[in-house]
Formats: sequence, structure tokens, C-alpha cells
Amino acid sequence: MAYVNPQGEFSRDTNYITTRITADGADGYPVEPGRYRLVVARACPWANRTIIVRRLLGLEDVLSIGFCGPTHDERSWTFDLDPGGVDPVLKIARIQDAYFKRVSDYPKGITVPAIVDVPTGAVVTNDFAQMTLDFSTEWTAYHRDGAPQLYPEHLRDEIDEVARRIYTEVNNGVYRCGFAGSQDAYDKAYDRLFTALDWLTERLAAQRYLVGDTITEADVRLFTTLARFDPVYHGHFKCNRSKLAEMPVLWAYARDLFQTPGFGDTIDFVQIKQHYYMVHTDINPTRVVPKGPDLANWLTPHGREALGGRPFGEGTPPGPTREGERVPAGHCAG
Amino acid sequence: MAYVNPQGEFSRDTNYITTRITADGADGYPVEPGRYRLVVARACPWANRTIIVRRLLGLEDVLSIGFCGPTHDERSWTFDLDPGGVDPVLKIARIQDAYFKRVSDYPKGITVPAIVDVPTGAVVTNDFAQMTLDFSTEWTAYHRDGAPQLYPEHLRDEIDEVARRIYTEVNNGVYRCGFAGSQDAYDKAYDRLFTALDWLTERLAAQRYLVGDTITEADVRLFTTLARFDPVYHGHFKCNRSKLAEMPVLWAYARDLFQTPGFGDTIDFVQIKQHYYMVHTDINPTRVVPKGPDLANWLTPHGREALGGRPFGEGTPPGPTREGERVPAGHCAG
Repeated sequence: MAYVNPQGEFSRDTNYITTRITADGADGYPVEPGRYRLVVARACPWANRTIIVRRLLGLEDVLSIGFCGPTHDERSWTFDLDPGGVDPVLKIARIQDAYFKRVSDYPKGITVPAIVDVPTGAVVTNDFAQMTLDFSTEWTAYHRDGAPQLYPEHLRDEIDEVARRIYTEVNNGVYRCGFAGSQDAYDKAYDRLFTALDWLTERLAAQRYLVGDTITEADVRLFTTLARFDPVYHGHFKCNRSKLAEMPVLWAYARDLFQTPGFGDTIDFVQIKQHYYMVHTDINPTRVVPKGPDLANWLTPHGREALGGRPFGEGTPPGPTREGERVPAGHCAG
Repeated sequence: MAYVNPQGEFSRDTNYITTRITADGADGYPVEPGRYRLVVARACPWANRTIIVRRLLGLEDVLSIGFCGPTHDERSWTFDLDPGGVDPVLKIARIQDAYFKRVSDYPKGITVPAIVDVPTGAVVTNDFAQMTLDFSTEWTAYHRDGAPQLYPEHLRDEIDEVARRIYTEVNNGVYRCGFAGSQDAYDKAYDRLFTALDWLTERLAAQRYLVGDTITEADVRLFTTLARFDPVYHGHFKCNRSKLAEMPVLWAYARDLFQTPGFGDTIDFVQIKQHYYMVHTDINPTRVVPKGPDLANWLTPHGREALGGRPFGEGTPPGPTREGERVPAGHCAG
């Protein structure tokens, strides 16, 4: 999934299964209620995007969800949180089994999020970047009443541009710091990351959301990294010029989203910390998980309403999280 | 020097050479100007105490100082910062040579600070806790004019009591977190540490210094740990309920001392970070040293003058740091 090149720089293996589930079924997988299962891990920032967007758009009844546990071994995420360690729909213990159903000797990274075709048990796609865009644009027939426009046509160029920089510099930038194999590679990665965070601070100082005046896909993509910043990236990945809580604009922006239905209610800080600190034994050999930071401050007033903005545009907030999909009490802030 | 017991708890080897240098020379080593050399490393919090106290009391002309580099190998600190890698007075490359002069097969930890008898080249003592007390009480004939009373007789019981708790819970408490060999040992260590920091916050909320209304040995001992808290202990040792910069009372107290001559001017943040992150490969295998945190905030106003207090009592602040003993620009805050 990840490797360090001879210069000590981290590179992400971006070789995904790019089959798409579309309204017209061009790739052989048409949008169809009840046919697919979204497999995620709450810990994973890339999977977290899909949890948020599925919930904001109200796709719960048409696209079921399976949760892998926070830790995994060398090869696969597992359904260790489920009774008997088996996903109740797919009847498998390890998500790699669904990959092997698709390609019997699947040689690439076994990643979440993945969408599985329930009838065949085979992974359709693990192309996380396309997945949420397709939720917005291909699954429209099944959006809830009041679903927001997360990828509105007239803003797509700007969203794509902002999201591209967020991906390379921030979402992936924190990993570039944490997995740097040399001091020089780390120093460069750190500078790149904080340059981007300064750019975002400037952009968000007088503007409530990243693009336009409503929540879009771009905000979802930034949010999942910011939520992990102080609990994990600041210490574990040495992204420590300052904590998110010490960057007033980004911290208020992150709290604003966190307190918006569909964002904070998807965040499981316990699983997030367990994942990073227990899986990356190359940078945390003891596997000890920090008790900090104190997270009650996520629920403090953020004051961003004063900037205007309409969180859901013409739409409405999602209702309460479904039974069985809630983050356990004690795993969330406050 | 340190080991982890079967329960995963960190224990410090406190087996030091306890010979004392005293006014009456009872142990065979009388106080004598020019005879001894204090060997330190700026990185080390225990050695840092001696740098501060020597400077506050004005012992520079009677007790010379040698600086080891920030990193060391399995066996010894070295004089790698000196020309040719050799201490100009002791003519040795590794402080272990001075230990072996004292005991030819010295079996215990080769530690700094150590005081070496220059004529014989042998370590007299490495008992850091006694060392600074002896600077205050045995070297009085050589104190500068205006030297403060860091261990005044009428406050010794209280200083000893406060210092004991600071030692077990804070100075050593951060190591107990960082070197915990199990989750359970870490969790307990974290709770102990922050319980003690909460006690200190309460004690210092309305009182400028720890004991009495002047700077004492107790403040020196707390300061050297607080100075390392955000650069090292918060991330590297997982002492991360919050940063020092997020604990308003302790942060103002630490800045007050930092901005007092004799404290902040002994702190080399570059060497401090290099030491911990490069030496402890068991918890930081990559040896990458974080670039953060931003340290300019050490020089911001602290407002503690409003609490009263007389930093040096009837005495005066020390003058400028001696030529050759200054922390390089760029290694300090601001």
C-alpha cells in the first residue's frame, strides 16, 4: 500500500480497482438499491469520507454498510467487531476474501473503503476518490429528500482544484511526514504540509466553507484529515508545528463541521487512535496508544455562523444516525 | 540506566556515585577553585539543573564546564562538539573514560551531569540531586555577589517535600509514560503525571514560585522538565492530555522562568530534540527529529509579575552568559 523510495520519501500506491457503479451501468454495475455493501473502517480517513457522504445524502436504505475493526494485519482489514468476527451480510471474516472473489490472486493493496457486489461477493471498486463523487452524481435517484448538493455542477472545477491540492498536500501530506524515511524527506514534507495549512487558513478566514457558501465534497475531504490531526498526526506523524487546536481558523472550521450532523457523529476517536498507533509498528514499536488529547473542546462554540453560509444549501441536515451505525458513547468527543 | 520491569513499568537505575565535594572535604574532595570540571549535556534535564544553578550562583570562574553532544551511543556520552572530539581540559573523547579512571570496570550507568577531579581525571560524583544542593550549601565561599538563596535553611523541609513529588511524578513521570512497556503501565503513568501537573497548577495559580516568594531549587527542578514538555515529552513520550502551552498557569510559570536570566539562556531546543528522538531508537526507530513545535511563544508576556514575588530575593540576576557557554542562535526560542 505504501512504500518509501530511495530518497526516503513516502509514496502512496494509487493503483485501485476503478470499476464504477453508475446509473447507466456502463461498467456492468448499475446503481441498484440493496445490491451493494459499502465496507469501511471508522479509523480510516479515506473510508470516513464515504461514511459521511452516504449519510449526508441519505443512502443508508439502499447501500448497506459493514464496519471493519480499527486494526489489521499485514494483509487485510477484518470484521473483528462483528459477532463471530464475520460480516453478517458478506459472511466473510476478512475483506481480502471479497477482493479475491474479484481477482483470485489480487496483488495490490487490500484497502477500505471498498464496495462489494453482494450477489457475487466480489469487490466492485476501492477507488475512494471516485466513490463519493458517484454517490453524489450517480445515485441521485435514491438521495433522501433534502439531500445537499455536495458536487454541484457549476462548482466542480473549483472543487476539483481545491480537492487536488488538499489531497496531495494535506490528506496525503500528513502521511508523507509520518512515513518519511530520512530527516531531509521529513523536513520537506513538514514544510509542504504547513504551507498548505497556511493557505487553507487564509482561504477559510473570511469564508465559512471551502468552495461556494455551502458544504461540498471539498469540505468532506479536508474534514477527515483535520479530525485526526491532534489525536494522531501531530504526535505520531510529527506534524507538530502546532496542534489543530492552536490554529484558530482551521480549528473553528473543523469544529463547525464536527458539530454539523453527518460529520462529528461519524468520528470514533478511540478507533482512530488504535488504528494508527497499533498498526504502524515501524514508527510505534510499543503499540502503546496515547490517552490524550482531551477532546471535549471539539464541542465548544466555533462562531463560524457569523461568516454566513448555508450548510446544506437548499437542503436539510440528515436525521439521526441509524441504529447499529452509531459511534459508541465514550468513543466520541465530550 | 533504565529498564522496564515485568509489569511493563519503567524504573530508573538510581545507583549513583555519591561521593560529595564539600567545604570540609569529608569525602576527600574539598571545594577548591579550578580543581573540578562539571561535565554536562545541554539536552539532559538532570544536567540542565546544574547548568542553571552554577550560573545563578556565579560559579563559572571556580568550576569549569564541559559540554557533551546531544546524542550518545549505548555506552557513553561523548565530547563530539569539541574540536577533534576531545574535551580541551580532560583530554578525553568519552566521559566514560573519566568513570573508568575512578572505577576501572565501572558497571553502572555512564551519566551526565558528572563532576570530574581534573588532576586525576576521575569522576567524583554523578549524583545529580545532591550536586545542585551542594552548589548552594558547600560552595558558598565562591558564590558571586548577589547570588540568590536557592536552598534557604528555613524552607528546606518544604523544598525537599515539593521536590520529592516533582521528581517521582513529573521529572521521572514523563519517562514513565514514554518508556512504558505495556498499555496498562502507560495508562497508569499518564494519570499519575497529569494528576501531579494538576496539583502544580493549583499550587502555582496564585503563587509565583513553588516555595516561598523567591526562586528556589524546587523551581529549577520543575523548569527543566517543563522546558522539554512540548518539544519532546508531549509527542515522543505520549504525555499528551494537552501541551504545556495549553495549561495556562504552568505555561505562564514556565515562561516567567524562561525569561529570567539563568534559565531560558541555558536551553538548547535543537540539542534537546536531537537527544531524545535520535537516542531512543526503541520508540523512534526512524531517528527523524520533528521540526516543531514553533517556539517563539516562549518569549510572550506571562503576566506573573502581578502575583508579586522577588525572583532573586535579596540578591540580583546573574550577568550575561560567558563567552563559550552560550547556546547558539537558532537553538533557542524566538
